[in-house]
Amino acid sequence: MITLYHCRDARSFRPLWALEELGLAYELKLLPFPPRFLARPFLEENPLGTIPLLVDGETRMTESAAMIEYLSVRHGGGALSVRPDEPGYGAYLNGLHFGEATLTFPQTLVLRYSRLEPEERRNPQVAADYARWFLARLKGLDLILKDHAFAAADRFTGADISIAYALLLATSLGLADDFPPDVRAYWSRMQSREGYGRAQAAQSTATPSI
Amino acid sequence: MITLYHCRDARSFRPLWALEELGLAYELKLLPFPPRFLARPFLEENPLGTIPLLVDGETRMTESAAMIEYLSVRHGGGALSVRPDEPGYGAYLNGLHFGEATLTFPQTLVLRYSRLEPEERRNPQVAADYARWFLARLKGLDLILKDHAFAAADRFTGADISIAYALLLATSLGLADDFPPDVRAYWSRMQSREGYGRAQAAQSTATPSI
Repeated sequence: MITLYHCRDARSFRPLWALEELGLAYELKLLPFPPRFLARPFLEENPLGTIPLLVDGETRMTESAAMIEYLSVRHGGGALSVRPDEPGYGAYLNGLHFGEATLTFPQTLVLRYSRLEPEERRNPQVAADYARWFLARLKGLDLILKDHAFAAADRFTGADISIAYALLLATSLGLADDFPPDVRAYWSRMQSREGYGRAQAAQSTATPSI
Repeated sequence: MITLYHCRDARSFRPLWALEELGLAYELKLLPFPPRFLARPFLEENPLGTIPLLVDGETRMTESAAMIEYLSVRHGGGALSVRPDEPGYGAYLNGLHFGEATLTFPQTLVLRYSRLEPEERRNPQVAADYARWFLARLKGLDLILKDHAFAAADRFTGADISIAYALLLATSLGLADDFPPDVRAYWSRMQSREGYGRAQAAQSTATPSI
């Protein structure tokens, strides 16, 4: 059985969405945020205290974008992946990493220094620096979407899950008004997917496990 | 022909190292840092102005960790990858992403707010927050290295290239004294690889292209 440790709307939404798109059986362990402080027993499972954690037999993973590829290839017949012999292979791998490393991390700075830190440690300059940084990098996505409906291979893949999660986070941070038009339309299409809806329903109905 | 746009010791060192490990032919385009300001013609190749850029026929990639996997699978017979049916597959994908998303991005905050920004915009608090953040996450690597010589599958893979680049950057930022002992020994082993030496030689002897 695949077990996913998750906090609502955290990066673990990526593997949750992938599990639903692939129709796989899984156990969802919902934790309060931040688990490092509010779910101390979780540290026995993941000493870093970070979410997500995916456990599948001997395999334990902590990187959300890597989990999408793992689930697709190991358990889903590659349904969310692009094969190495397809022309979109490079774009697929690029999108999978881009969604997290380039589009998500900068937003965690906005979140941290505008909301999570105590008042005296907040920093509007840093929050603004990285909101701007995120929106500048979004242009890379916008250029692709000018000619394509998806991030790679002209079909829905794990690269879209990786990227669309960054758009979900941006929306929660109030950055969606600055999405370029093609990004806005793409984000709307992603939210209308049945798999996205099932993942949202799964996290809404789950009860905290720790 | 594979073309790699590179700045010395930037993230593009990852694909450069992979190219050398795989023994592939490539053209190295060395740019001054930051290319967005010092190599304006580069913006025609990559409108984001970010390094690296890898061009291989119709394929254009901007994410350094994704390039390792691309080069290994598309051109290197998978020599730097772990196959999906091997037990280390999840650890491999995790390490590939972990090296960039978790270990490298936080260091860019240290670099930016302690060195790159003009004096009046520097921020010791943020630089210290993310030096600490990086070192805390390094414990995840240290736990693996207690029992293994490599990040995944008990052999050298692209996950090691992804992670060891983060250690190269940390060394340049003065964080290496705080590496746990097993991380320090691992970093030393990585630097002693012939492929690493060839990649260092390649960037040392290249002349700026733009």
